[in-house]
Amino acid sequence: MAATKTYLTGIQTSGMPHIGNYIGAIKPALAAASEHDTMYFLADFHSLNSVKDPQKLRSDIRSVAATWLACGLDPERTVLYRQSSIPEVFELAIILSNITSKGLMNRAHAYKAARDRNEAAGVADLDAGVNMGLFNYPILMAADILIMEADYVPVGRDQIQHIEYTVDIAGSFNHLYGGSYSFPIPKGVFPEGDASVLPGVDGRKMSKSYDNHIPLFLPESKLKKLVRRIPTDSTPVEAPKDPDTSVPFQLLAQFAPEEHTAATRKRLEEGGMGWGELKNELFEVLNDTFGPMRDRYEELIAPDSELDGVLEAGAARARERARATMAKVRAAVGID
Amino acid sequence: MAATKTYLTGIQTSGMPHIGNYIGAIKPALAAASEHDTMYFLADFHSLNSVKDPQKLRSDIRSVAATWLACGLDPERTVLYRQSSIPEVFELAIILSNITSKGLMNRAHAYKAARDRNEAAGVADLDAGVNMGLFNYPILMAADILIMEADYVPVGRDQIQHIEYTVDIAGSFNHLYGGSYSFPIPKGVFPEGDASVLPGVDGRKMSKSYDNHIPLFLPESKLKKLVRRIPTDSTPVEAPKDPDTSVPFQLLAQFAPEEHTAATRKRLEEGGMGWGELKNELFEVLNDTFGPMRDRYEELIAPDSELDGVLEAGAARARERARATMAKVRAAVGID
Repeated sequence: MAATKTYLTGIQTSGMPHIGNYIGAIKPALAAASEHDTMYFLADFHSLNSVKDPQKLRSDIRSVAATWLACGLDPERTVLYRQSSIPEVFELAIILSNITSKGLMNRAHAYKAARDRNEAAGVADLDAGVNMGLFNYPILMAADILIMEADYVPVGRDQIQHIEYTVDIAGSFNHLYGGSYSFPIPKGVFPEGDASVLPGVDGRKMSKSYDNHIPLFLPESKLKKLVRRIPTDSTPVEAPKDPDTSVPFQLLAQFAPEEHTAATRKRLEEGGMGWGELKNELFEVLNDTFGPMRDRYEELIAPDSELDGVLEAGAARARERARATMAKVRAAVGID
Repeated sequence: MAATKTYLTGIQTSGMPHIGNYIGAIKPALAAASEHDTMYFLADFHSLNSVKDPQKLRSDIRSVAATWLACGLDPERTVLYRQSSIPEVFELAIILSNITSKGLMNRAHAYKAARDRNEAAGVADLDAGVNMGLFNYPILMAADILIMEADYVPVGRDQIQHIEYTVDIAGSFNHLYGGSYSFPIPKGVFPEGDASVLPGVDGRKMSKSYDNHIPLFLPESKLKKLVRRIPTDSTPVEAPKDPDTSVPFQLLAQFAPEEHTAATRKRLEEGGMGWGELKNELFEVLNDTFGPMRDRYEELIAPDSELDGVLEAGAARARERARATMAKVRAAVGID
């Protein structure tokens, strides 16, 4: 459709992101948005599969949208929309089902992982607890990508299979129906080198599932308390310390200016800087970084903010593109 | 939604029906339409799974719609619409996927039959040739029914499982989300007694797959030739004949007035009526029955007939209902 290349990214709507998500996903995506034509969608239908509480789902969606906007996403430049605003995605998913072999889904990682869990737990029926939303997930994901005729899909390495499946399904469609319309074949864009993994407050990878995360927009007092509670050993203030095994230092290094980080490293290595002081510094840096975003987040998350209008405007732009694709797909298959 | 009960029926769009379909499906459905509030939809998305030729799909859909209208369906009284005109069906199917266990689909008859065929053929991968459209079929069917809040679904006995699955899936939804909205639980309506099975020209059940069928709207000369070619034995004209083992007589009995059928029975049993004369009678009866419908069919099937407008008007009525259901479903799950 467009002459320029489109980068499409799905955003999980599982509640307020943490500072690890900011470094690993939001910041790189915002950098990409300044260079490319980008479409970012809130994958609320994917969330439906795990979140059966409508109130939580609603507030999660708004919270994630407000977070991205507060972090600096420019909705004039990036098309930001809710997956659920594009009914053409679901229609395309149904059409793609008809040209997707069941064997392909049998081999999908997420499905196989669920079976492995059942096997490990000694459950006789390996499909126990597996619902069709999980089993069909790769088809819905292919529809998300193909409906927008996306050229590039930045994803983590754990998502490579989904891109491969999308390419496979698009290829089947083009082979069967390519006379009048062919999907552009999307390419995955993978992070270069090892993604920097932010440690959580307990030293393991920061993750909501470990409950060791620092939410992006904690009120100042709560942020201070959380940082103060990061476990440290009893090395005395005057003793030299190893910054590279220190969680507060590793976090500081991600957010402080380089000279600041270097100076703190030096003070720790030389001795004379205690963990308490380091944590105070970390709090200040985090508060300086996220404080203004937090204020903006609070404005956006309020009922009757411009948030819903921004999402509607994004949906209108995305839907125009989805409708154009769907019209071509319908004509190609003979449903028009 | 409606105070009166709604009867919903899906119509396969696999080309022009034959006179066996008329007796077994169309005539009873038209009788029901004079008594109940009825919605009949052309299941064109289901056909997509087997028909990959867009031209054939297009012409099949128009042909089936024109047939039903020519047979007497009153589109003012019955809501006649194409499944593909109701995008809400696909959205609902995706939502229902999330609350449908994979185990339920594993046990679906059509899927199991496909595996049995592979097993019988010695194919190692029992899922070979099975696509996700087939595997997901019961979910799409449940969405067809539930989106219209249908109360009754007249189906053949081979479709009992689909109704059971729909009831099961609706029950899961109501259990999980029933606080704000619950689907009405649909009931299957099954033909009383044994459905009268019309014989094909070779004496087996009339079916396109046996290629022994008499299409509804053959041109007069072709109909005459086809009837003349029904195999009969060499019993001489003057010999008594058994009407109950005669294919032409059995066909005649379905379409001729009772007195006519009784008189012909008598003449066959007494002797003096040859097979050629019987076949001439059958041709006249079929031509009298379907001739006027054929003329109407030819008008409707012409490009730029009122057919497309009739389908659009039906779609608008059906979609109003689908939108109302979908708004309630979205609010119930938290996507609104």
